[in-house]
Amino acid sequence: MADLLKGAAVAAALNEKMSAKVAALVEKGVAPTLAILRVGAREDDLSYERGAVKRCETVGVSVKSVVLPADVGQDELQAAIVALNNDASVHGVLMFRPLPKHLDEELACRTLLPAKDVDGITSGSLAGVFSGSGEGYPPCTAQAAMEILEHYGYDLKGKRAVVVGRSLVVGKPVGIMLMGKHATVTTCHTRTVDMPSITREADLLVVAAGVASAVTKEYLSPGQVVIDVGINVNAEGKLVGDVNFDDADSIVSAITPVPGGVGTVTTSVLVSHVVDAAEKTLK
Amino acid sequence: MADLLKGAAVAAALNEKMSAKVAALVEKGVAPTLAILRVGAREDDLSYERGAVKRCETVGVSVKSVVLPADVGQDELQAAIVALNNDASVHGVLMFRPLPKHLDEELACRTLLPAKDVDGITSGSLAGVFSGSGEGYPPCTAQAAMEILEHYGYDLKGKRAVVVGRSLVVGKPVGIMLMGKHATVTTCHTRTVDMPSITREADLLVVAAGVASAVTKEYLSPGQVVIDVGINVNAEGKLVGDVNFDDADSIVSAITPVPGGVGTVTTSVLVSHVVDAAEKTLK
Repeated sequence: MADLLKGAAVAAALNEKMSAKVAALVEKGVAPTLAILRVGAREDDLSYERGAVKRCETVGVSVKSVVLPADVGQDELQAAIVALNNDASVHGVLMFRPLPKHLDEELACRTLLPAKDVDGITSGSLAGVFSGSGEGYPPCTAQAAMEILEHYGYDLKGKRAVVVGRSLVVGKPVGIMLMGKHATVTTCHTRTVDMPSITREADLLVVAAGVASAVTKEYLSPGQVVIDVGINVNAEGKLVGDVNFDDADSIVSAITPVPGGVGTVTTSVLVSHVVDAAEKTLK
Repeated sequence: MADLLKGAAVAAALNEKMSAKVAALVEKGVAPTLAILRVGAREDDLSYERGAVKRCETVGVSVKSVVLPADVGQDELQAAIVALNNDASVHGVLMFRPLPKHLDEELACRTLLPAKDVDGITSGSLAGVFSGSGEGYPPCTAQAAMEILEHYGYDLKGKRAVVVGRSLVVGKPVGIMLMGKHATVTTCHTRTVDMPSITREADLLVVAAGVASAVTKEYLSPGQVVIDVGINVNAEGKLVGDVNFDDADSIVSAITPVPGGVGTVTTSVLVSHVVDAAEKTLK
């Protein structure tokens, strides 16, 4: 049986650290505030929003909701973003995507200030991840994977890490961040030939393939640590990851469960970015 | 004996393509222009500048030189960058780095418009490489490596590529660009354990280690294509790459020579960025 790298303990530790920081900020007259900018009312967005609001409450971060109708025009959206950029009481902005198709999402992302981009959607944040310059913030899910590794004391230096998936929100940033921690990183994707022969060589496997239970026993080997970033609904209506859990459980050394793994940590990372952004306003 | 992937043929093909584009632009009243912004007179900068100017002349791109004294203040430097940003007759800006230590290089880079950043130094360009969005331009040396592979018809899809080096100007962008061409990419660096066992598994090896002849026969295997990005002066005062050429020549299938490989293509890539930037002003 593999060790379970549960997200709850990671989130709790992060929250505790953030609560202390929020208290210190409030004492200095700064109330860390997340603005949530939502267009329309997609069920996915609402569900994530509930989680984020709850997490903010836990830690003492204020939330300001800005909701625009699903048929809002670009000008009004731009004006809302600029208003949040200029609002000194707002430290971070979470803008839900995808935006409705009639809107220019790229323009909207470009308008947001990287310093308030707590979800890593601006060019400034992407460049910050890529260069390690500290500009903006990494995508929350990617950083959640890193927080889990750090919380459980996994030293990445010199380790062979394999990332499955090359998306801009998980695969690419995780690969760069693992490299920054001195792992030797290989990124696999849909065009990779004989993927199991590559993933089996990994000390650490981060899977963000977006396909339910795609990683089965032939991909795995004993001693591995597996971070499963996937969240899928399988044929029986059950939440499952991108890794076949039973296969992994019988082979690898440690794995994040789904649900209860990476997804559990994401909103805590978001909130930690808001707190960090609020701290920077004091510098 | 390995095939020699000479840079001259790649540069010549690029130059020919660019000459035709320049002629078409000039016919439309646009004279593609590179501004070279140099602070002081470092020998490295002067040498690269001579090459760039010559390459611009070959292709018909105009050059505007802006030279500031080595003890220039930040304000004056910023003003020079802003003036180039605002000068519609300038399509690309090459700013030599490192800047003298008393200057804030990060601020200077941040000031340059990504649309004119033909050498890939701004956040916009870095984010463009990372996301594949087409914003800005990739660092010229990294793209020169890619141009060589394309010129010689090397199909990257499904190939195992290993990049040695994780610098922001070569290793990281090359890794991301190879991934964009559907290679499975591993990035090795100084903390990698048993690097030869990893590099030997590569179909394609891109070496940007910055150490003369660091890659010797135990790193190599038959059939490999090797791109040597290194340029070093060895104990005998001779220019050598990061790969031991004699070792590689007797084992691998193809290799770029040093000198005469990647370095030969870099200024042609720079000029192609200027031409592209000029074309974009017509859109």
